[in-house]
Amino acid sequence: MRRSHYFIPLLKETPAEAQVVSHQLCLRAGLIRQVAAGNYDWLPLGLKVLRKVENIVREEMDKAGALEILMPAVLPADLWKETGRYEKYGPELLRFKDRNDRECVLGPTHEEAVTQIFRDNVKSYRELPLNLYQIQWKFRDEMRPRFGLMRGREFCMKDAYSFDTDREKSLEAYQRMFDAYTRVFDRLGLQWRAVVADTGSIGGNYSHEFQVLADTGEDTLLFDPDSDYAVNIEKYDAATAPKPREQLVEKKGIEVGHCFHLGDLYSEKMNALVTLEDGKSIPVVMGCYGIGVSRLVAAAIEQSHDDKGVIWPEPMAPFKVGIANIRHSDATCTDMATKLYLHLQTMGVETLYDDRDVSAGQKFAEMDLIGLPWQAIIGPKNAAEGKIEWKNRKTGETQLLGTDQLPW
Amino acid sequence: MRRSHYFIPLLKETPAEAQVVSHQLCLRAGLIRQVAAGNYDWLPLGLKVLRKVENIVREEMDKAGALEILMPAVLPADLWKETGRYEKYGPELLRFKDRNDRECVLGPTHEEAVTQIFRDNVKSYRELPLNLYQIQWKFRDEMRPRFGLMRGREFCMKDAYSFDTDREKSLEAYQRMFDAYTRVFDRLGLQWRAVVADTGSIGGNYSHEFQVLADTGEDTLLFDPDSDYAVNIEKYDAATAPKPREQLVEKKGIEVGHCFHLGDLYSEKMNALVTLEDGKSIPVVMGCYGIGVSRLVAAAIEQSHDDKGVIWPEPMAPFKVGIANIRHSDATCTDMATKLYLHLQTMGVETLYDDRDVSAGQKFAEMDLIGLPWQAIIGPKNAAEGKIEWKNRKTGETQLLGTDQLPW
Repeated sequence: MRRSHYFIPLLKETPAEAQVVSHQLCLRAGLIRQVAAGNYDWLPLGLKVLRKVENIVREEMDKAGALEILMPAVLPADLWKETGRYEKYGPELLRFKDRNDRECVLGPTHEEAVTQIFRDNVKSYRELPLNLYQIQWKFRDEMRPRFGLMRGREFCMKDAYSFDTDREKSLEAYQRMFDAYTRVFDRLGLQWRAVVADTGSIGGNYSHEFQVLADTGEDTLLFDPDSDYAVNIEKYDAATAPKPREQLVEKKGIEVGHCFHLGDLYSEKMNALVTLEDGKSIPVVMGCYGIGVSRLVAAAIEQSHDDKGVIWPEPMAPFKVGIANIRHSDATCTDMATKLYLHLQTMGVETLYDDRDVSAGQKFAEMDLIGLPWQAIIGPKNAAEGKIEWKNRKTGETQLLGTDQLPW
Repeated sequence: MRRSHYFIPLLKETPAEAQVVSHQLCLRAGLIRQVAAGNYDWLPLGLKVLRKVENIVREEMDKAGALEILMPAVLPADLWKETGRYEKYGPELLRFKDRNDRECVLGPTHEEAVTQIFRDNVKSYRELPLNLYQIQWKFRDEMRPRFGLMRGREFCMKDAYSFDTDREKSLEAYQRMFDAYTRVFDRLGLQWRAVVADTGSIGGNYSHEFQVLADTGEDTLLFDPDSDYAVNIEKYDAATAPKPREQLVEKKGIEVGHCFHLGDLYSEKMNALVTLEDGKSIPVVMGCYGIGVSRLVAAAIEQSHDDKGVIWPEPMAPFKVGIANIRHSDATCTDMATKLYLHLQTMGVETLYDDRDVSAGQKFAEMDLIGLPWQAIIGPKNAAEGKIEWKNRKTGETQLLGTDQLPW
């Protein structure tokens, strides 16, 4: 993409309302803009990052055998009344009436809706196991939305729901999702921990959180190097949580995923039955599995940034390489930059080519702020010798490379 | 995809509430399910079709130089008050108050929101031309939602917005979108017409509709074989529409796209100014361009079906090939079907392999109902001779092919 054809509105000053670094950098680097408290426009650069996350999540869900569907954002209140959550859920559940005076909600989660799909369309154990997931924009009417994408009102979530005939098979499904989550967070290039968790407002009887590690995280984790899982110190319950032999309080985390084993909590209330081989009908055994897709964009920034800006892990970067042609008027520079841009395009390397007639300082500052993993800096002295300055955004290391020495 | 691992809940009977054929077939073929009047779940097969449409639209928007963004579904009423549409728009605009008593709307269209992005982030002619688009779920509070995806309450739309410094450049942007629409509808494999149209509730002064032709279409089109465009007879306005020399009333159409030249209708009211080369500031000149992404799924079915079911145009088909192994217990059949499935997977041909132990009749009926373009029917007699029955869903023609004679 040529920068002159692209749209990255930067902010020089940090907006006063942005308290956390991911919120500040999302605004300053032109990833998002606020429309109302907690509601954001995703601008081209931010949306590209979001799509990278979304695609990795989708690929791993598909590989794990989950099937993608899409449920409505607006749901009938009647569904939520069946499980009692219409009354129980707090004011974060936005309730309204449509023009026909029917009560509706803007779904912050979709257990009822997916259980309805099961109830109306599946009858027999022969059709199981089944795992349905969606990647969807949800709404949570926060009292004081803040921290940007970390706790917005409109947010993108992957939510998967497993259906099985018994607890044992359901726990196998849970493990498949757990393993898929491992691959998702590894592939995103993030430092993360699985944490034994309580079950909160979703209910159920077995649950893990997935936390991206960051100095700025909200949750303090108990971590035992000999154990598989950490424990969230705020939610620590000695009766149910494992007791690691040597617990270290050494990390802060940001919750970006959650697995719940639900059992028949929803299926019993909603009469979602499955007929077994012996002819008996039982409430189907369920699990639910969330990943905060839009929140991951913010969590990655909390984990990986410096005072100059964002440092994207390569798998999440909106472009892999940024080319800064710092002497627009120099024919050798422009020729070299253009050829490099075309070469990288041909190699399938996503590249942002800053071809504008602005100062070198402005280009350097913007490249650091938007955080592309690699910068190719092309100036008159090096270009005359056929060299490109090749900079690693994370380490700041630079080297002079000939055009035949690039990684691609 | 193995059918035994997939989820296609079929209906044998046509649901009474479904009046039009696309609604009937969407339900019968397991593409969607109703959650509430006008709100639908997209099941795996339906969502795959939707994504095909979405991807073709996205590719052509990107090629035309438009930049993808994503605006919120929930918008502050204040924005809509700036243009007067909060009061003027009918009850289709869902209005509600959030927990902080702030007035909000569920956006059925995003002219105000995108104009706000422009106003807050673009100042100079140097940053133009600019075209921002999104592919997004919108909401329209229909009094009597009906006809399934043709007129639902929640619907997926591509909406693009162009920004230019003068009318001439804006009409060039309009033409680029018009040309992109031509490529979109051609690539989808649909029969369609561009139609001179009025500007309805969006406003503005120049507009075209794009109509998919179908016997069941709602709009009657005046079509002159010597002219580029048809005219919608209900909206025909002799004062502004071109007057074809020989008008034929020969077609019914379903509106699936609309281009509007808006001029400064929104930018003036919202004070979205751009500074020109001479230092003067003027309201930016806009166009807006919609495609009904979810509606296209229904329109394609209206255009292409028979009494057995859907006949997908190849570019929209959820799978290109369906393999029906009609003798599950026969080792030669199962071996041939499995090898064919793996071969097609390797060739990158999306394939649904019906590996279930159900009757041949059930497999044939389902294959015809879900409308995959090609069916590979594998039975014991032909399999023993190394032959596959290869059926074209559209023409019904079959031929016996050796495994080395397949198109892939």
